[in-house]
Amino acid sequence: MATPQFKQLRRSYGFDEVAIVPGDVTVNPDQTNIDFKIEGFTLSIPVIASAMDAVTDVNFAILMSKLGGLAVLNLEGLQTRYDNPQEILSEIAQAPDAEITPLLQKVYSQPIKENLIGERIQAIKKSGAVCAVSVAPTNTKRFAPIVAEAQADILVVQSTVTSARHISKSYRGLIFSELRKSIPMPILVGNCVSYNACLELMRTGISGVLVGVGPGAACTTREVLGVGVPQITATMDCAAAREEYRRESGRYVPIITDGGFRKGGDLCKALAAGADAVMIGSILAQAKEAPGLGYHWGMSHPHPALPRGTRIKVGTTSPLQQILFGPTSVTDGSQNLIGAVRTAMGICGVLTIQEMHKVEMMVAPAITTEGKSWQLSSH
Amino acid sequence: MATPQFKQLRRSYGFDEVAIVPGDVTVNPDQTNIDFKIEGFTLSIPVIASAMDAVTDVNFAILMSKLGGLAVLNLEGLQTRYDNPQEILSEIAQAPDAEITPLLQKVYSQPIKENLIGERIQAIKKSGAVCAVSVAPTNTKRFAPIVAEAQADILVVQSTVTSARHISKSYRGLIFSELRKSIPMPILVGNCVSYNACLELMRTGISGVLVGVGPGAACTTREVLGVGVPQITATMDCAAAREEYRRESGRYVPIITDGGFRKGGDLCKALAAGADAVMIGSILAQAKEAPGLGYHWGMSHPHPALPRGTRIKVGTTSPLQQILFGPTSVTDGSQNLIGAVRTAMGICGVLTIQEMHKVEMMVAPAITTEGKSWQLSSH
Amino acid sequence: MATPQFKQLRRSYGFDEVAIVPGDVTVNPDQTNIDFKIEGFTLSIPVIASAMDAVTDVNFAILMSKLGGLAVLNLEGLQTRYDNPQEILSEIAQAPDAEITPLLQKVYSQPIKENLIGERIQAIKKSGAVCAVSVAPTNTKRFAPIVAEAQADILVVQSTVTSARHISKSYRGLIFSELRKSIPMPILVGNCVSYNACLELMRTGISGVLVGVGPGAACTTREVLGVGVPQITATMDCAAAREEYRRESGRYVPIITDGGFRKGGDLCKALAAGADAVMIGSILAQAKEAPGLGYHWGMSHPHPALPRGTRIKVGTTSPLQQILFGPTSVTDGSQNLIGAVRTAMGICGVLTIQEMHKVEMMVAPAITTEGKSWQLSSH
Amino acid sequence: MATPQFKQLRRSYGFDEVAIVPGDVTVNPDQTNIDFKIEGFTLSIPVIASAMDAVTDVNFAILMSKLGGLAVLNLEGLQTRYDNPQEILSEIAQAPDAEITPLLQKVYSQPIKENLIGERIQAIKKSGAVCAVSVAPTNTKRFAPIVAEAQADILVVQSTVTSARHISKSYRGLIFSELRKSIPMPILVGNCVSYNACLELMRTGISGVLVGVGPGAACTTREVLGVGVPQITATMDCAAAREEYRRESGRYVPIITDGGFRKGGDLCKALAAGADAVMIGSILAQAKEAPGLGYHWGMSHPHPALPRGTRIKVGTTSPLQQILFGPTSVTDGSQNLIGAVRTAMGICGVLTIQEMHKVEMMVAPAITTEGKSWQLSSH
Repeated sequence: MATPQFKQLRRSYGFDEVAIVPGDVTVNPDQTNIDFKIEGFTLSIPVIASAMDAVTDVNFAILMSKLGGLAVLNLEGLQTRYDNPQEILSEIAQAPDAEITPLLQKVYSQPIKENLIGERIQAIKKSGAVCAVSVAPTNTKRFAPIVAEAQADILVVQSTVTSARHISKSYRGLIFSELRKSIPMPILVGNCVSYNACLELMRTGISGVLVGVGPGAACTTREVLGVGVPQITATMDCAAAREEYRRESGRYVPIITDGGFRKGGDLCKALAAGADAVMIGSILAQAKEAPGLGYHWGMSHPHPALPRGTRIKVGTTSPLQQILFGPTSVTDGSQNLIGAVRTAMGICGVLTIQEMHKVEMMVAPAITTEGKSWQLSSH
Repeated sequence: MATPQFKQLRRSYGFDEVAIVPGDVTVNPDQTNIDFKIEGFTLSIPVIASAMDAVTDVNFAILMSKLGGLAVLNLEGLQTRYDNPQEILSEIAQAPDAEITPLLQKVYSQPIKENLIGERIQAIKKSGAVCAVSVAPTNTKRFAPIVAEAQADILVVQSTVTSARHISKSYRGLIFSELRKSIPMPILVGNCVSYNACLELMRTGISGVLVGVGPGAACTTREVLGVGVPQITATMDCAAAREEYRRESGRYVPIITDGGFRKGGDLCKALAAGADAVMIGSILAQAKEAPGLGYHWGMSHPHPALPRGTRIKVGTTSPLQQILFGPTSVTDGSQNLIGAVRTAMGICGVLTIQEMHKVEMMVAPAITTEGKSWQLSSH
Repeated sequence: MATPQFKQLRRSYGFDEVAIVPGDVTVNPDQTNIDFKIEGFTLSIPVIASAMDAVTDVNFAILMSKLGGLAVLNLEGLQTRYDNPQEILSEIAQAPDAEITPLLQKVYSQPIKENLIGERIQAIKKSGAVCAVSVAPTNTKRFAPIVAEAQADILVVQSTVTSARHISKSYRGLIFSELRKSIPMPILVGNCVSYNACLELMRTGISGVLVGVGPGAACTTREVLGVGVPQITATMDCAAAREEYRRESGRYVPIITDGGFRKGGDLCKALAAGADAVMIGSILAQAKEAPGLGYHWGMSHPHPALPRGTRIKVGTTSPLQQILFGPTSVTDGSQNLIGAVRTAMGICGVLTIQEMHKVEMMVAPAITTEGKSWQLSSH
Repeated sequence: MATPQFKQLRRSYGFDEVAIVPGDVTVNPDQTNIDFKIEGFTLSIPVIASAMDAVTDVNFAILMSKLGGLAVLNLEGLQTRYDNPQEILSEIAQAPDAEITPLLQKVYSQPIKENLIGERIQAIKKSGAVCAVSVAPTNTKRFAPIVAEAQADILVVQSTVTSARHISKSYRGLIFSELRKSIPMPILVGNCVSYNACLELMRTGISGVLVGVGPGAACTTREVLGVGVPQITATMDCAAAREEYRRESGRYVPIITDGGFRKGGDLCKALAAGADAVMIGSILAQAKEAPGLGYHWGMSHPHPALPRGTRIKVGTTSPLQQILFGPTSVTDGSQNLIGAVRTAMGICGVLTIQEMHKVEMMVAPAITTEGKSWQLSSH
């Protein structure tokens, strides 16, 4: 007699376990269109910089917008806790490994200054850039009016896991349908990873969903909590929710895969898995213009008693423009991300990201087991 | 023609191969209830310290009970073979690697002093703590009356693999249904890993089942004997037996996943796989109060001619209270285990451990293949 | 309710993940016939040297032809950009690692001299060897007449991914059916990896298909673009297309697995997966006669702004004859490739490569997990 | 449309990928019976020493027989090429790594002296031991009469892959049914790995089948030829053939899993997969009495132009008796193999090896991914 099954376990996949299959037709990469739309806004590249202190500050947000993408300023990070965040950033970059977690715990325990929220938003807006800012669900009711008043363009409501229904005795959870009506701007919400959670979020009327729990380079949620879904599966499940929601509502709500990217190939795979755009941290923290000074750390909202973020040294490689558009002399896929996306689309014979959603992917062993093993053994 | 199949092999899963999927709803972690009940006793945290000499002595048992958990004193280890076990413990901690297996074989060949059984139990009871003690099935008939007389609270009958039916010509196997009637206390039995073995044990009337063969950090059963089932599969199969037994008897017999835990995420996964509580060795051996002095070794019952336990250095990290409840500055999941459990439950939107049994899990590649590989390569 | 599936992912396999099952009958290896036919030409061994500058120059092409195989001269590499390519080859071999990618970008940006095309072809032809040359699809219209005039025997049209239909606004894609009629020689086209793409190529009337995207030792396409299919799956899918095309047309169009080979066992597996021949780079770059001087690099067509090839040190091991036919004293499968193919065929009980297509293969763990782990641990 | 499938690939399993599930009943290990029968002979332990020069010489064969097992003397190795093989053995043990393959090629190219065949057999017989000897199929017609005349007890006909039907133009293949009639002793034949090949061999009337191609520690067949089946799958498939042959003939022909064993757990798994006995090389080469002097090499029949065997240092650990029966102080499963088998049988609740064939096994990740990773990281 077969053992009765207590629980079904689906197999899930991360970036390193899949590969894109070339198409039956090929197209000239120059003809591909990689626009990404969030309600009224159109970005010419489907890349958003993370709301993390090592990645996005005012200047970085202005530069990303000029280059056709978007950067999200974290309103609960160092930028709104310190008049002069550069000092703190350089302290973090210089701290020895052994002291870094207590230091992060200390600098993030400083209170948020509400006046800095408006100042940062206005500094970005003044340049003509599109301004996106992020807050945690818990603080949304408090900060959203300030954000609206300062005329930010896009609000991102983000925590490790955000659902449409939060249960608490001590406070009333955030109701996205109410928030949607109360402020006059597109709202992106995340993160989530499952079909149902994503579908419920879309039904509240929000403008886009961030996808990804536990995959980031500086995040240890899977080790500490055991929670997380590898990004290809998370993206495919949320893409299925997007299609279902389009069927039932007629409205197309984009999904943005957030976290775990290490090279151009990962971006291509996320788009092939159904993402409309990607949110990137570590790779952009390597830009000369990144505020992290060659380091990257943590999650946007460190938990004081249960930290799940570490500082990693990513180094500073080249200007942001070169990371996004090349040219490059490196062959590891960490530069010319947009060139990689367009070339992959050409090889797959697709002209738009929505067509890219239909290309075939396979479960494939990580490349280290095939061609690369020679390389490794010969050095 | 397809090859006829001699034997079907099911795929099994260990902690590192699965991940928990966040829920459609989220709850405030403070509202979660993680009580664990064994017949008359209710623990406020579902954590039991292993019956191993590096983990549990009288003082550690008292402390665990105060903190809401339980620790099991091994009545066939050093504590009942030596009037002053501290001496031996420190000898073990100081021995060089090359001499450790013979040393362990020597110190465990000293006879058990029956008078020490009562003394240890009374020392624990005097403090007001719940007192749990363990014996091997072979010695149960001999020691159970002493345990009962000394008024221990809970008896654990434990060996590498314990079944409801043991066949031997030279002695009559232990009959759990008889034992149950003869002594007036809850009995936990283990270890087992399969549906049928677990179901048969429950039908004898015992109070709880320990789950796990071969997964512990200091155990080499899988290498030496080829026997063992990875803990997620073992837990799910025994949870299926518990549900079947509840259907047929109306009685809920908890299962306790024992062994192989290395971080908070593993605890969360065991509970999601169906465990009512967890039994932990290595992680607790790192506590400042642990008798192992930074080391951990062996199985509770070393086989003189076929040893399957090794001594490993686990180090001493922090007080037990901090390991269980934080706060912590480490981000590897080895501290604030209870915070991790509650946070994971919050993310999954469940209020009790029995609800946690219903959350979705996925087969997922170990995190090192995704986000962590960057980290590894950048140091 | 099960999560709706956004996309199906097939499992794919590379060389290291499969093994060939011995046959029910065995044959004497001396009786095996390993001829490979491309239209009018018959090679006595099914091995083609890659169109890469580290592998094939005029002398190497002559030698391969003498030994019964074939080598393809890349008409867009160093051989047609420099009157004296040896100088550049030795510069590449001597450059330090840090300077290699810019150096490769520089030397490959020199223009192609059309007069050298004819010179190289005639040098090969003069020796009596079969002369095969390769061009990229983009340059085929321009170079094909020159190739035809110089009376090369076989034209290879090759790029990372080549399809029967290429879409571009700026130029009219190459039409293979037209090319086929315009030049009087067999045409091999590639690379492709999927059933449909391969079938469409065969329907244009071409003479053979090169199979493989992303698996080569010196290629990082999978990292940079996320695109690629492991070679066993790619070969099996294209073999299925060959069989379908034979059914519909009566014509047998051979497929040649190109890239990712590291040892004799890999050749045997490619043939068992359905290949009619193999195209090899790295292994042959180790020959004493190889122009790469112990190094191997890149793809045949480096992309200036998005390079996907690296230089690897392969070393120089022995004369080409010994790599192909032995005898050998090494036991890692890198020498006596033809002996390995014949011995494997003998063990499988097959007399021809077409019979080899029918042998059983299994998905098997890489050998390092079984016998070899001892070896590794004992040194 | 789904891609038509060119070939089906079954998943296969090696020792490290499976684990034995404990039984619902347990038995006292002392009560287990592990007899192994080959026609008229009964061994008290199911262990056969390999026909390899580093493992079996006359003295080792005598000792194995005394201890209840069997050792097979290779009649085509050093023992029959040299009057004084010890000299050569010590030369092999002392050669530097770089010179070992040419040295092995040289010493094995010395001709076989037919008079030594009789001498070695008689030396074994004189001691009262059971005498088993091996020859390759090619040499069987020539040597079998000598073996019969010298009154060896068991003949082993063994090559990398042996089938019931061998096709050659240059010689007439060995017909086992004829051999069976011509010599008056049990015949073991191998190696094979598949259901059909094994079934065909059994139908020739031979007495037992050796199972295993490519898994041995000193064998590189899988790398060089791509041929091989992991041992658990090979054993299960041949066990299925044994059952089918029993159904059709009423005769029980035992199968012996040969190669790839590294520890006691592997023996237990082979028996659980359906083996009646095991043939062991590397582990026994570690015995103080082994002729290899701490080294182990090659296959029994080195191919001069395509070697697939390497010399590995296994070290000398302890007397054979201790390796087989303990006691031991090591915990890695390399000693007390018989104790491990009996203990595993006890845990599985089975009394005989034929009952052991029915225990459940699971596909399980190698233990390094679970408990052991801690151990590794803490040293």
